Amino acid sequence: MLPLRIVRCVASTWSPSPPSCSASSPLSPASLLRAAGASRSRFRAMASYSSGSGKPQRLLFRQLFEKESSTYTYLLADLGHPEKPAVLVDPVDKTIDRDLTLIKELGLKLIYAMNTHVHADHVTGTGIIKGKVPGVKSVISKTSSAKADHFVEHGDKICFGDLFLEVRATPGHTLGCVTYVTGDGPDQPNPRMAFTGDALLIRGCGRTDFQGGSSHQLYHSVHSQIFTLPKDTLLYPAHDYKGFSVTTVGEEMLYNPRLTKDEETFKSIMENLNLPYPKMIDVAVPANMACGLQDLPSKV
Amino acid sequence: MLPLRIVRCVASTWSPSPPSCSASSPLSPASLLRAAGASRSRFRAMASYSSGSGKPQRLLFRQLFEKESSTYTYLLADLGHPEKPAVLVDPVDKTIDRDLTLIKELGLKLIYAMNTHVHADHVTGTGIIKGKVPGVKSVISKTSSAKADHFVEHGDKICFGDLFLEVRATPGHTLGCVTYVTGDGPDQPNPRMAFTGDALLIRGCGRTDFQGGSSHQLYHSVHSQIFTLPKDTLLYPAHDYKGFSVTTVGEEMLYNPRLTKDEETFKSIMENLNLPYPKMIDVAVPANMACGLQDLPSKV
Repeated sequence: MLPLRIVRCVASTWSPSPPSCSASSPLSPASLLRAAGASRSRFRAMASYSSGSGKPQRLLFRQLFEKESSTYTYLLADLGHPEKPAVLVDPVDKTIDRDLTLIKELGLKLIYAMNTHVHADHVTGTGIIKGKVPGVKSVISKTSSAKADHFVEHGDKICFGDLFLEVRATPGHTLGCVTYVTGDGPDQPNPRMAFTGDALLIRGCGRTDFQGGSSHQLYHSVHSQIFTLPKDTLLYPAHDYKGFSVTTVGEEMLYNPRLTKDEETFKSIMENLNLPYPKMIDVAVPANMACGLQDLPSKV
Repeated sequence: MLPLRIVRCVASTWSPSPPSCSASSPLSPASLLRAAGASRSRFRAMASYSSGSGKPQRLLFRQLFEKESSTYTYLLADLGHPEKPAVLVDPVDKTIDRDLTLIKELGLKLIYAMNTHVHADHVTGTGIIKGKVPGVKSVISKTSSAKADHFVEHGDKICFGDLFLEVRATPGHTLGCVTYVTGDGPDQPNPRMAFTGDALLIRGCGRTDFQGGSSHQLYHSVHSQIFTLPKDTLLYPAHDYKGFSVTTVGEEMLYNPRLTKDEETFKSIMENLNLPYPKMIDVAVPANMACGLQDLPSKV
């Protein structure tokens, strides 16, 4: 039986041995323990400002949500670099002002506005961002056939400061889907993080019936490019509809209701989803082929 | 000028010195560099499963969202403890099944279902959880006057495994509001994390015109108990309405549009919000005074 313990520190002098949370300590399993210790003075010391957090985090990471399309946008920056270079993954047109205000407040230099794929359910913000922030370059996969400043391919590294994202081709939801994975190395984020777009969703995956989709391809993409990452890799999808924010490779390998199945079962599941026609696709896809701007100027 | 670089690794043999992302490397600032290196074999090696993530993370942390009330629920667990004891902060009645399924899948042992305060905009899930998971204890502040298994006070430590949350009294939104802060110490999460309830929201704060609220108290709570934490402390509120997921002490000290003001200006802002009567308050508060169950059995 696990001791349920709330340690109360209410007395007027602080004990040199404060109550421990260690399960191996001789504390009784009673739920409330009153310890002789000076909460007040101790508390103030704990509360006072100090750097107290050891080595500073190099990666700044923010997950941002757009409610209407349930889209996640991700902001990553290298705080260890003097210019704090940043990338924005899957920005949405409607939340650009929010995102750019945050980037400005955090003192970051946005260098890339990237998409995991040509989205069908919202309009990307990359074109608008380019118009508002000089120097930002849009990035998408070459196989997407969309317009952008830079086209990436499987195996490319997208550098921001001394951090980077590795590009993994994960087609199947669309022909041009890629997953961006944080670098592998001592100075890169640990655990690794993968931005899977719609290739892998939390306990789900993107549909495969439009935009060059293929359930065969998607199955192999996820198994060869995502499930081969370390099990503690944090997976951040482009959407979630149930309020989840993150999962891991290990979790999806155990609990993804589609991708834990054999390929034939997976294909059968995908063929029988009976989903409605994507309501935004006829607006979003043409726009997203050109950074969200149907009439993208040749030089923004 | 920051070099904008995407490093492409496409050749057939891997260079012993792969292209570096270092800004001090002699790479040209051209946006696309093709390096002589074997992407394929290297890529497979990078992609193959390995533990490769160094020291495992002790804290499991999940942020969960309930769309209707824009409420965040937080799951924390000590993965370093054999029983993986977990706490759930501010669970919502409507998302209990989602949360309990996740807890089960992750192999956690939920020990506490906690509230930061008596919520007025949604019904807490703590009572339902107690009915579904034997042994779970509900936790709320003593000053909330609500029913619960355990009442916490300023300075208490809530232990789960070898991790703990420190209780800080942060009244003002309601009389009984507390902020739960991860421990200060070498084995505790770094940077620290604070679950601020409605005391501090991202670039905002909770209203102060109901439930014993006081703008004077809230101002002093935030300044003495939250803004005194290390600047890199991650602040996780009970709600966000704009799609933000987290902020830091440093950010809010610079950019919170209310709490960066002097106290008199803050009080004036809070007195002139002209917010509508909280639509759920007459249902939610009576329920939340009893773990979300208006007729809470004496023994669940």
